[in-house]
Amino acid sequence: MGNGEKTSLASAIDGNRLWRRHMELARIGATARGGVNRQALSPEDGKARAMLLGWAAARGFVGSVDPIGNLFIRRPGRDAAAAPVVTGSHLDTQPTGGKFDGIYGVLAGLEALEAMSDLGLRTRLPIDLVVWTNEEGSRFPPTTMGSAVFAGALPLDRTLATRDAAGVSVDDALAATLAAAPVEGRRPLGFPIAAYIEAHIEQGPILEATGKMIGAVTVIQGLRWFSIEILGQAAHAGTTPRRRRRDAFSAAVAMVAALERLTADETDTVRFTVGRVEVAPNSPNTVPSRAFFTVDLRHPDAATLARLGDQIEAVCRANARGCEFTVAETIRSEPAAFSPAIVSAVTATARRLGLSHMEIVSGATHDAKFMTGRCPSGMIFIPCREGVSHSEEEDARPEHMTAGARVLAEVLAELSNSAE
Amino acid sequence: MGNGEKTSLASAIDGNRLWRRHMELARIGATARGGVNRQALSPEDGKARAMLLGWAAARGFVGSVDPIGNLFIRRPGRDAAAAPVVTGSHLDTQPTGGKFDGIYGVLAGLEALEAMSDLGLRTRLPIDLVVWTNEEGSRFPPTTMGSAVFAGALPLDRTLATRDAAGVSVDDALAATLAAAPVEGRRPLGFPIAAYIEAHIEQGPILEATGKMIGAVTVIQGLRWFSIEILGQAAHAGTTPRRRRRDAFSAAVAMVAALERLTADETDTVRFTVGRVEVAPNSPNTVPSRAFFTVDLRHPDAATLARLGDQIEAVCRANARGCEFTVAETIRSEPAAFSPAIVSAVTATARRLGLSHMEIVSGATHDAKFMTGRCPSGMIFIPCREGVSHSEEEDARPEHMTAGARVLAEVLAELSNSAE
Repeated sequence: MGNGEKTSLASAIDGNRLWRRHMELARIGATARGGVNRQALSPEDGKARAMLLGWAAARGFVGSVDPIGNLFIRRPGRDAAAAPVVTGSHLDTQPTGGKFDGIYGVLAGLEALEAMSDLGLRTRLPIDLVVWTNEEGSRFPPTTMGSAVFAGALPLDRTLATRDAAGVSVDDALAATLAAAPVEGRRPLGFPIAAYIEAHIEQGPILEATGKMIGAVTVIQGLRWFSIEILGQAAHAGTTPRRRRRDAFSAAVAMVAALERLTADETDTVRFTVGRVEVAPNSPNTVPSRAFFTVDLRHPDAATLARLGDQIEAVCRANARGCEFTVAETIRSEPAAFSPAIVSAVTATARRLGLSHMEIVSGATHDAKFMTGRCPSGMIFIPCREGVSHSEEEDARPEHMTAGARVLAEVLAELSNSAE
Repeated sequence: MGNGEKTSLASAIDGNRLWRRHMELARIGATARGGVNRQALSPEDGKARAMLLGWAAARGFVGSVDPIGNLFIRRPGRDAAAAPVVTGSHLDTQPTGGKFDGIYGVLAGLEALEAMSDLGLRTRLPIDLVVWTNEEGSRFPPTTMGSAVFAGALPLDRTLATRDAAGVSVDDALAATLAAAPVEGRRPLGFPIAAYIEAHIEQGPILEATGKMIGAVTVIQGLRWFSIEILGQAAHAGTTPRRRRRDAFSAAVAMVAALERLTADETDTVRFTVGRVEVAPNSPNTVPSRAFFTVDLRHPDAATLARLGDQIEAVCRANARGCEFTVAETIRSEPAAFSPAIVSAVTATARRLGLSHMEIVSGATHDAKFMTGRCPSGMIFIPCREGVSHSEEEDARPEHMTAGARVLAEVLAELSNSAE
């Protein structure tokens, strides 16, 4: 593919169409405060899938689903039997979600395919636009359910049996969703993929703060969650001298302060958050007998994540102030590094198109995580306002959305034409 | 009064009778776990008052009440017109209270009067055994209601209009209580008192830990309560760098750690407690947007209490970590010092009776606080198991209860015979 052709593909991206489709999809599950409530496998999810399938059908792209309901919409390539290049993201939202998280990756992918068709461009490999089932996990845990089942990281049968708070199973909700957005094709879990690239809003403040339009994502940082429970002794706040106390909250304060020191780093790369805190009996004049807090620790480097997380128990022990405590690790997810070739392709494309860009770490997890072990994978980030997501306030600028779709289209064309 | 007579009064204290009466009163409002639920102005309060009045009547002691329902049971003196010496405490308990908190001061006072009668001892001044209304404040706030109204620190009309959680007023509940424990006599609020002395379990661990039977209470420490609210900004735990966060709980940790340093003292006299803590949105992967904590600060010295409390806002400001915050002082109660003459009398009596003793600060507040401005006042503490009170586990040893009643009887006799 010559340089002229690449430029014209990027130019064929229709920013107005891309924006309009976001606004049309946002009506499905629209909230009074400008957000979207379109939880996984809800009637709204079915309507959104049907709307997407309608747009695809108008271009002759045909959908198929796998057993967990991941939807694959194919733009054929010259080599019909070849493993496809896959792009996409998810259509489900948090209960008070926004118009862009996930949706952008699907619609930017569709826009890239449509721009190719507008140009009459043929690729060697087929390209599949994927809608992963239930990325958010707010109705049915866990998050990134569809991509995890596809990759074999979650068992299909147990996942289909998962129930929401109302007692409805994934199996039943999925049947209703597929009935509302029917496709004929069926695909197996884990079929071969040539390459995977996903566009997404950053969900963080870095691109906006540094004035960059395009983030070439190098890695989804690893995550370790811990629950720390401290047991002291309730006592009268007026009569009990400090030296005779076993104050569970005072121990929690000492532990958290020490953990903040442990995780402080010059480059501000470590993410350390104490987000949930409980104290009992929680009475102003009673020394707390119990305190509980969570630690959310993230880092892009597996060794650093291991080293820091493994020190948490010792730091707590050194600051227990006479209390008993337990440290339980509740989640551990290793960093997932993207293909250097795809990171380079994103960076080179952005540079060629004159779009400001940087390499960036993904702080949140994404469906792309489960592709990293299966094929060359990557992600493209665009800025979102003040880094806000999972919120009805979530916002993104049309020019950034267009820029991201241009880079995505160019990289997809490159991947689907590259030699095996 | 000669030394022999004093010795015989102490010897006339009947420890078995004193213990038995505790056990009889403990049946009124007894809980399944061995505690007592006898909240102020409840039917149980009425029954307890009636039981006490029955024991008093058997000795010819007559009861009267003031407008807030404080009950005064008189043992007459030679000088019928003189202001009485007053002793007593309260019969109401916390919802899950014990058999001794308050009750001990009333029954030790009754035992002292009965021992005087057993000996045929006549005092110059009358002695009133008082049952203060609603010391605990658990049904009707505030605590020490009866003694505060008596002393003019709370207005009668507004206090009578106070309602419990079910909407019942103090006025109506008091009428029902007095109907269940009727007395003919009426007394005004704030009548002159010659001297006041109250026996009580320590509600703290110091006497037990130091092996002393008698505490001569020098002061009820002062108290300041503060509510600190911190407003930061919610953010994604995975994507938001530490330097861009305004983490309300991280600020709370820094503030509490700094306040612990501020209030640390060599003598372990300062009482500093963070007992209530709230965090929002309280989700493991969201940086807290709001944190709230209470400070309970106590000290026996008014100047120290003022100095420490006045520094709280500045310490919070120095540790706010970019968050906004407010510090509200919700309660302030100055230290209340007892009469040195009465402290000396308690100490001298304990020494003479061969009872181990020490001077001690009261960490909790008591009805005696409102007497300190009105007449020479004092308190006698006895140990309680592990310093526990306001608990169904509350316990005290019969030999300590007897020892306290002996000291109380001797000091009452001394006060009621002393020259004007």
